[in-house]
Amino acid sequence: MPGLASETIGIWVAAGSRDESAETAGSTHFLEHMLFKGTGTRDAKSIAAAFDRTGGDSNAITAKELTCYYSRCLVTDLPDITGLLVDMVSNSQLDVEEFERERGVIIEELAMSADDPGDVLFDDFDALVFGQHSLARPVGATKDQIRVLGHHTVIDHYQSTYIPPRLVIAAAGGATHEEVLAMVEEALAEAGLGSRGDVWSGAGTGDAASVAKGSHLGGAARVRPEFHSGKSHTVKDIEQLGIMLGCEGLAEGHDDRFIYSVMLTMLGGGMSSRLFQSVREERGLAYAVNCVASQFTDTGTFGIYAGCTAENAQAVVDLAMSEWDRLAQETPSQFELDEIVSQLSGSMVLGLESSAARMNRLARSEIFGLPLESPMDLIERVRSVTAEDVSEMAGRLLSRPKALALVGPAAEVELP
Amino acid sequence: MPGLASETIGIWVAAGSRDESAETAGSTHFLEHMLFKGTGTRDAKSIAAAFDRTGGDSNAITAKELTCYYSRCLVTDLPDITGLLVDMVSNSQLDVEEFERERGVIIEELAMSADDPGDVLFDDFDALVFGQHSLARPVGATKDQIRVLGHHTVIDHYQSTYIPPRLVIAAAGGATHEEVLAMVEEALAEAGLGSRGDVWSGAGTGDAASVAKGSHLGGAARVRPEFHSGKSHTVKDIEQLGIMLGCEGLAEGHDDRFIYSVMLTMLGGGMSSRLFQSVREERGLAYAVNCVASQFTDTGTFGIYAGCTAENAQAVVDLAMSEWDRLAQETPSQFELDEIVSQLSGSMVLGLESSAARMNRLARSEIFGLPLESPMDLIERVRSVTAEDVSEMAGRLLSRPKALALVGPAAEVELP
Repeated sequence: MPGLASETIGIWVAAGSRDESAETAGSTHFLEHMLFKGTGTRDAKSIAAAFDRTGGDSNAITAKELTCYYSRCLVTDLPDITGLLVDMVSNSQLDVEEFERERGVIIEELAMSADDPGDVLFDDFDALVFGQHSLARPVGATKDQIRVLGHHTVIDHYQSTYIPPRLVIAAAGGATHEEVLAMVEEALAEAGLGSRGDVWSGAGTGDAASVAKGSHLGGAARVRPEFHSGKSHTVKDIEQLGIMLGCEGLAEGHDDRFIYSVMLTMLGGGMSSRLFQSVREERGLAYAVNCVASQFTDTGTFGIYAGCTAENAQAVVDLAMSEWDRLAQETPSQFELDEIVSQLSGSMVLGLESSAARMNRLARSEIFGLPLESPMDLIERVRSVTAEDVSEMAGRLLSRPKALALVGPAAEVELP
Repeated sequence: MPGLASETIGIWVAAGSRDESAETAGSTHFLEHMLFKGTGTRDAKSIAAAFDRTGGDSNAITAKELTCYYSRCLVTDLPDITGLLVDMVSNSQLDVEEFERERGVIIEELAMSADDPGDVLFDDFDALVFGQHSLARPVGATKDQIRVLGHHTVIDHYQSTYIPPRLVIAAAGGATHEEVLAMVEEALAEAGLGSRGDVWSGAGTGDAASVAKGSHLGGAARVRPEFHSGKSHTVKDIEQLGIMLGCEGLAEGHDDRFIYSVMLTMLGGGMSSRLFQSVREERGLAYAVNCVASQFTDTGTFGIYAGCTAENAQAVVDLAMSEWDRLAQETPSQFELDEIVSQLSGSMVLGLESSAARMNRLARSEIFGLPLESPMDLIERVRSVTAEDVSEMAGRLLSRPKALALVGPAAEVELP
């Protein structure tokens, strides 16, 4: 991104909470916290200070299939930040006293999330649809699991997972590819990790053709979950009932992902979307109503989210089903399709200005073995979607078994 | 911002919930919603579609002293968006049927906020410290107030407040000043608002020297609130206790605002801050702990926020007080000060890449009559802060009467 003063760099680990067993639940997220607690040459405070003094946005995130440590900083600070991130990932100390103290911090993080009705709803939906599969568990596990998680479990996880084939470094911003490469090589050498070849065997330098699909994901360890239909309701004494109604969605990198994206946007992707117009604008029943989609290696979830009073819940679910059904039954007009294509294209071009968004896209392509298409190629793919494709996609999803998760006051709502 | 493909434009109204009486409470926020519901030439759906088809981020926000309608879009879409925003602000229809339907949407928005413990805590703190003053009320008012708010009240508010002297248009991005000016003039002409002179009398074109301080704020209508000390506790059956401990802070544009900013960052502005290190890193008592500051025309609030279990609440408050006190008693080292200056400078330079952040800064300078300083000037102002200044600021705040708001389980916590 020539001319930009900033760069976003991320070190990604192709491992998430999905890769845990019931016994090791929570260890991926716990490890993410521990990486900030000290390396062979830096203590926790100096790690925090090194990130903060850049004035950038630096943090880490654990998801169900991925972990990422990232920083957006000035290009002039990039050598220091690259060195710091590589040191954290490769030389973490996992000190036992720090581990015990961090247990309390993580329990507080989980408590905060338990008090957020939206977080609870999303976790409940996954718990409902993924049954006994590891994707059913919340990323951070439960407070009870964190209370008993052993130090050795996190050490084992670190040693077995934070290994070269699982790691991807992605960057976007004002620095050139060669400059970033030189910084990473120096950081690796400083961390005692040897030459570039050790770390990057099997991967290219931005050339996705050389990456076997899923090559970072550690092979066949992941078992495809079965999708469970049904209904769940966590009764909470709060004002709104949160609703998530959905079915199995598309996996990461599915051939029909551009059709899916157009359908999600048309049904529930903005203030002009069908759900927003029907539920909020025409009926005034909800403040927030939209589509939500999660993609994993081998599956995905599609959901319609809304928050409303318990008395209106059945009406909201009926309206949502009716819009979903109408999209499946009646081919949308070319005018409506053109509007959605314009929306998605504009959003992609605007996204080009964000080094964080571009770093993310690079990393996900690399990790999931997807082609690294240019934004213009992506826009072409969106433009090639037809109105019939969109209807067919809505119908394909509609024919699948459905799940309904509710969080909030008691209510009579039927599973469609 | 030469070379940028995007632009962020905002139309600001120098009016917020503070300017309401008890009888008109909620009308500013209600009006913000109504502006999306139709103009003389556009219905609600075509307004939504016009924003959505750009693929940009478009929305509005009502605060206690300001209202803003904004969009980040491609420069090529800017003429349409400018025309749309000007039309919404100047030709809103405030249709009574739309008004009644929107009442339900706003009540749902307030319900969602009531279920967010953080929102409740921030509202409670302001309610506690501002007593009977209009700043004490939540921006959107209460559900009961919205249930009875009259259509005529919102019409009156629109007619008396959305007038040229109260309006500011700010923009930042790839378009030149002259291009934006031409678009705004065309949009004004299209809206039947006559020439530039009608609207911009008294204001400059980015030349803040020509703006009288507070000239957009409608003169002497605002009465300075008294700060009330004390304690409040909203008991909620949730897992965490939310804590906000603070005192009166600095007003918008206060001469010591750069000292204040350094102090806020040193005490609770990042993962290396004193509060984060003491409460989270050394003791593991909270996941989130940081300083929070609000600035208004004639006053402000300073607060320390933390979320923790009820049993640890007194310990967290004690640690927070002890860090606050230590900063007031002991001059920080030049090293620590340099780190904070580096953090704030880096953050300012990184912020230059955001057209939204720059649009915001321009608008606030214009509305509050503050000098439009260049980023380099701002960095110089931060660099001129001394370690003694920081201690003095911490001490000045520490000597003020304190307020403590709690939201969550019952707990024994003393007001310091």
